[in-house]
Amino acid sequence: MARWEPNAAQRLAVAALELFDERGYDHTTVLDIAQRAGLAKSTFFRHFQEKREVLFGEDPLTGPLVAGITAAPAAATPLEAVAQGLDALGQEVFTPARHPFVARRRSVIDAHDDLQEREALKGLHLTASLTRALTDRGVAALTAEVAAQLGALALKTAYERWSGAGGTEEFGALARRVLGEVEAAASGL
Amino acid sequence: MARWEPNAAQRLAVAALELFDERGYDHTTVLDIAQRAGLAKSTFFRHFQEKREVLFGEDPLTGPLVAGITAAPAAATPLEAVAQGLDALGQEVFTPARHPFVARRRSVIDAHDDLQEREALKGLHLTASLTRALTDRGVAALTAEVAAQLGALALKTAYERWSGAGGTEEFGALARRVLGEVEAAASGL
Repeated sequence: MARWEPNAAQRLAVAALELFDERGYDHTTVLDIAQRAGLAKSTFFRHFQEKREVLFGEDPLTGPLVAGITAAPAAATPLEAVAQGLDALGQEVFTPARHPFVARRRSVIDAHDDLQEREALKGLHLTASLTRALTDRGVAALTAEVAAQLGALALKTAYERWSGAGGTEEFGALARRVLGEVEAAASGL
Repeated sequence: MARWEPNAAQRLAVAALELFDERGYDHTTVLDIAQRAGLAKSTFFRHFQEKREVLFGEDPLTGPLVAGITAAPAAATPLEAVAQGLDALGQEVFTPARHPFVARRRSVIDAHDDLQEREALKGLHLTASLTRALTDRGVAALTAEVAAQLGALALKTAYERWSGAGGTEEFGALARRVLGEVEAAASGL
């Protein structure tokens, strides 16, 4: 019987990103990753279907983002609700401790067109979840779509700035500022 | 030597959509498509790499959309420039004559998750082209991104309404109205 390995998925993901950084994504095998993590290759395949899944297997963003939007006061505007979702991402996902991991993951993805496409598709699913979280609050359909598009743009822009910098600025504060810039641009069109 | 077949790509695309409609996408082969179009299978492969490319081989939208934006008067706001791009789509792509083709293509894509993903990725490339067309007009980067997102949302919504209805309404007029709704939603957030 397979031995239970605590935190195996996370250890594999960290090992994979180290190796992608050192050797490049194309020159890293699943066996390399398992060995670096001190785990068996079979353990890798209990957690991920293929090498690429180390980067895309989990979706850590949708849950906190939707929960933050849902928890916003009933009187909050759509964009205020989105801002609370972005705050939740700063508390749970884009934390200082996770900054090196996030920055490495991004640099691997940016270097490969097919990984970028996959990431872009994830972004579309996230935008759809944002829209649903807003319509669930009673926001009208088209308004929810507009707010979700602007929220997704703010999230992407804040993520790029945060992961590209040292990670010292709190993500939630940064994302709220970017959302304000996006809102100002939208109302001045 | 291969005989030159006039309009082969378009005949193949029309035949393919007829068959997808009658038999389903999964139950239509490249040979079926070529035979329906009265062409050889080899002619199909001179125009398309695989069956799916009949739906995605050409990108008829980016050219007219970008040209319309570029041709807008220098004093036009970003969204006015986008509206001129949408007008161009109504004149060149979403015409009454092409309505049956567009509606059929959409129903095939809507029925298949992988085709929907491919269509969504095309939408992302289109949005990126929109952004570039606006920055080329001197629009600031974030403003261009916001206007491109709103323009892409208006285009998608107008396309869904136009292809879902009888196609009697002029696409450009419909798209301008939707863009106005999107703009109103954005400024009232």
